[in-house]
Amino acid sequence: MRLVVVGGVAGGMSCAARARRLDESAEIVVLERGEHVSFASCGLPYHVGGEIEEADGLLVQTPESLRASLRLDVRPGHDVRGVDTERRVVTVRTAAGEQELAYDALVLAPGARAVRPPVPGLDSPRVRTLRTVADAVALRTGVDAGARRAVVLGAGFIGLEAAEALAHRGLQVTVVERAGHVLPPLEDEIARPVTEELARLGVDVRAGTAATAVEAGTDHDVVVLSDGSRVPAHLVVLSAGVRPDTEAFEAAGIVCERGAIVVDEHGRTSAPGVWAVGDAVVSTDAVTGVRRPVPLAGPANRAGRLVADDILRPGSARPLPAPLGTAVVRVGALTAATTGANRAALDAAQVPYRTLHLHPNQHVGWFPGAAQIHLVVHVGAQDGRLLGAQAVGTDGVDKRIDVLATALRAGLAVDDLIDLDLAYSPPYGQAKDAVNLVGMVGANVLDGTLRLWYAQDLDAVLDSALVLDVRTAAEVATGMLPGALHVPHTQLRARLDEVRAAVAGRPVRVLCASGVRSAIAHRVLAQAGVDSASLSGGVLTLRAVLGERADAMLTAAPALV
Amino acid sequence: MRLVVVGGVAGGMSCAARARRLDESAEIVVLERGEHVSFASCGLPYHVGGEIEEADGLLVQTPESLRASLRLDVRPGHDVRGVDTERRVVTVRTAAGEQELAYDALVLAPGARAVRPPVPGLDSPRVRTLRTVADAVALRTGVDAGARRAVVLGAGFIGLEAAEALAHRGLQVTVVERAGHVLPPLEDEIARPVTEELARLGVDVRAGTAATAVEAGTDHDVVVLSDGSRVPAHLVVLSAGVRPDTEAFEAAGIVCERGAIVVDEHGRTSAPGVWAVGDAVVSTDAVTGVRRPVPLAGPANRAGRLVADDILRPGSARPLPAPLGTAVVRVGALTAATTGANRAALDAAQVPYRTLHLHPNQHVGWFPGAAQIHLVVHVGAQDGRLLGAQAVGTDGVDKRIDVLATALRAGLAVDDLIDLDLAYSPPYGQAKDAVNLVGMVGANVLDGTLRLWYAQDLDAVLDSALVLDVRTAAEVATGMLPGALHVPHTQLRARLDEVRAAVAGRPVRVLCASGVRSAIAHRVLAQAGVDSASLSGGVLTLRAVLGERADAMLTAAPALV
Repeated sequence: MRLVVVGGVAGGMSCAARARRLDESAEIVVLERGEHVSFASCGLPYHVGGEIEEADGLLVQTPESLRASLRLDVRPGHDVRGVDTERRVVTVRTAAGEQELAYDALVLAPGARAVRPPVPGLDSPRVRTLRTVADAVALRTGVDAGARRAVVLGAGFIGLEAAEALAHRGLQVTVVERAGHVLPPLEDEIARPVTEELARLGVDVRAGTAATAVEAGTDHDVVVLSDGSRVPAHLVVLSAGVRPDTEAFEAAGIVCERGAIVVDEHGRTSAPGVWAVGDAVVSTDAVTGVRRPVPLAGPANRAGRLVADDILRPGSARPLPAPLGTAVVRVGALTAATTGANRAALDAAQVPYRTLHLHPNQHVGWFPGAAQIHLVVHVGAQDGRLLGAQAVGTDGVDKRIDVLATALRAGLAVDDLIDLDLAYSPPYGQAKDAVNLVGMVGANVLDGTLRLWYAQDLDAVLDSALVLDVRTAAEVATGMLPGALHVPHTQLRARLDEVRAAVAGRPVRVLCASGVRSAIAHRVLAQAGVDSASLSGGVLTLRAVLGERADAMLTAAPALV
Repeated sequence: MRLVVVGGVAGGMSCAARARRLDESAEIVVLERGEHVSFASCGLPYHVGGEIEEADGLLVQTPESLRASLRLDVRPGHDVRGVDTERRVVTVRTAAGEQELAYDALVLAPGARAVRPPVPGLDSPRVRTLRTVADAVALRTGVDAGARRAVVLGAGFIGLEAAEALAHRGLQVTVVERAGHVLPPLEDEIARPVTEELARLGVDVRAGTAATAVEAGTDHDVVVLSDGSRVPAHLVVLSAGVRPDTEAFEAAGIVCERGAIVVDEHGRTSAPGVWAVGDAVVSTDAVTGVRRPVPLAGPANRAGRLVADDILRPGSARPLPAPLGTAVVRVGALTAATTGANRAALDAAQVPYRTLHLHPNQHVGWFPGAAQIHLVVHVGAQDGRLLGAQAVGTDGVDKRIDVLATALRAGLAVDDLIDLDLAYSPPYGQAKDAVNLVGMVGANVLDGTLRLWYAQDLDAVLDSALVLDVRTAAEVATGMLPGALHVPHTQLRARLDEVRAAVAGRPVRVLCASGVRSAIAHRVLAQAGVDSASLSGGVLTLRAVLGERADAMLTAAPALV
């Protein structure tokens, strides 16, 4: 039995290694187009930035180590150009020419390649993607050689890691992003603190902007942007996304969907004896059911293992899980992370949902180093099922997203989060952990105990409601929303008549800094028969969503105190 | 409607606050025996150690702040001495004498008090518990006044926090623990690194030892131990556990079980109109079904909220969840944490289980700062259901225990952990996260792909099996188990005949450093028809379980290399 694996990183190598552990007798051949197998592709930006000093540190395994440990026949520099699924042979191109290799089982893990937008001049030698060890070494060599300015095209996860790395090395870095904000899959509420952190790191962010040309020069290139500005660059990093690298396989008749290989729940393609895993494969989103490739290392690695099970233990393998798209990125002192669906995906899939905003501390406020986590959680409007969560902060973010990803995978509803028994002592959490609080707020929203209004609805609220600001006098001294009434939440019960007099037939929309005190105030008002609602996430979320517009409003009209 | 809450910390105050949010009209009275309400009892050791500089920082709320925000009538210095459940009145003792207070609904949250073992001399003024702000201030005053030596009686979570705090302030600290190791609820495998860390902090640990007397002296007391040794102490911290503080309520006819109040799934006691929460209440263990009080802040706080729901929204409240006993402690640079049942609890409840040991890094090994997490996970022997997990390490421990606690609460089996989609980028995890790896190892064990042997079985193995050490020559140069055969795992396939010759009818028991390479070797051997098994957790776990005995064995017989 000969198993041929196309692609020696992540899913492919994971599959080969598992196959050997299941079957000592199989012949296992791994064909890798590139120079290296099992290299740390997620580590490339950190080599550029110097946190991983030696490029060799990125080579996790070598063909030799894999042969010694697992008797794998690993062949770098082997580019699979075609498959004959009838004869069960692949055509492989090497430096020595083309040859055929027969297989009994074939696993396609070709991965993805960088999207190259149709921008004139992108073929300049100063433009590089960041996909291979050679890319990272070239960028680092450029930095060592005195590059002083860099442009990063694309502010996704890898783009921001590259930008930070280059800024860390002292370059003046500009990030260009076509979408309205950095990290496009993340919500406004999460992206805004990241943008501020990039500014703190000295990175110039140009969101809502595209590169229209790269003009080659002697000392440097110039990146021309859609707003007409011209940014000089000794280095340009192209990081505008990836697409499945599947032409050879689609040409061989293996069914693809918008370029990604279609597989069943065990990774089987349309061709008998051919499986596929990783960035090149269509997955069905666990929350929305949308079909799309999910180019992430974790799902690819785990899927490789499950595919090996299906090949060698047919009938007893676990099915591949639908990916949640969980991802995390470090940007300066911040961590931003996401799991499940975002607002855009839910809107597109027409899933009815409610959104919760919380800003709890990562550990008790009275223990040194307390810091807020900004959380956005989407839950099913009727059943409260967890649909997606995102968070940003300096500490404890990855923990909460992992807990929420686990809850999401287990199919928990938001109120089930109340009962999670999470580890508490002062350095680590709160007796009511951030995730428990999500459950409590969610349960209140679902059963009507808490009624929310959203920053996105500000214009309608300013038009037709009485805004009640329940922060302290000191907090509102720097400004309130226009027309707002100020009654600190501690005085609300005593001053209810005053609020009633100001209402003038309008609903009351309450706000405070983070949404905690406004929720208490809402309860007071609702029980007094007033039509009220509490601003989800408070002024913190309002500023994150509305940006400078909110800042201007909240400083333009300082309250009388 | 008057709601009376007995006890103004954790569960009691959580209940009162929730009650107000649900009902503006209720009269809510909180009776607290002590001087303070809502104080940070978990923070007391950190005030002693100086991380929380001001004692005021421990006072999270005051009667005034609670009145202003939530219109609660909070009365410190009010000691409830009795209840008449027929007349619905409590008897309250204050500095001014006794009085009665009628209630419509009564919530008992009296908490627990320190266990005082029958040791002569424990009434010395140099002996203190660490339960109140006054305790913490007194200990800190003693340190400031020049105390140089301290003895901590009891090496549970709070005892170790106190010991570290005192050592941090420069005292010579001895910890005395009756059980065989520190942190008795944790497994040997977890306690051993903690013991080593305490040694590094300069704390002298006397496990398997009890105090038999405290002899008062002029400059200092002397703590006499069961081994006859005498330890001088300017301060003695008594931290030998707690027991429910329920005499007055049991005397009133409220049904108790070994001193803890019996409640139903909504916290209702045997008396109509009387609820109870927190450390004073019997819970049913989520894994073993054992009934016992669980004195932890998290479950108490969350239960208080649910009890308020049951009082004010009868019929629609969520039931109280069965506690998992999740807990975490920082000891020096280490974090140790647990969730679910330990080995002793599973043995006592006669639950059949398998144990997994893993030592994965908290993030990829090629990113700076990689550090091992030592994991012990118990799973159902047949169904693989998660039963309990413990971990220790310098980073990422609390995250993994929280993920496992979430999985446990959701009823996941160990192989479900394979599919968790956890946040990965190099600073945060691995494409196969530590928790995913638990799932993979667990699935292998359950389906027979991996067969384990355990450090606890070492004597039987040395007697009757061939020990095969598959570490590298460099690793075994410092020593192997007596009689072991050394074949590096990379040479095993080529040297199978040599192994077969050495077997002489015995089973082969393989080991390596952590259990990864021995699992690969096991697969080679098993597929070659050899009766083999892999040491769970490898030499790391062997040393943690067997301690100095393993150390001596593994250095006594250096291998020929």
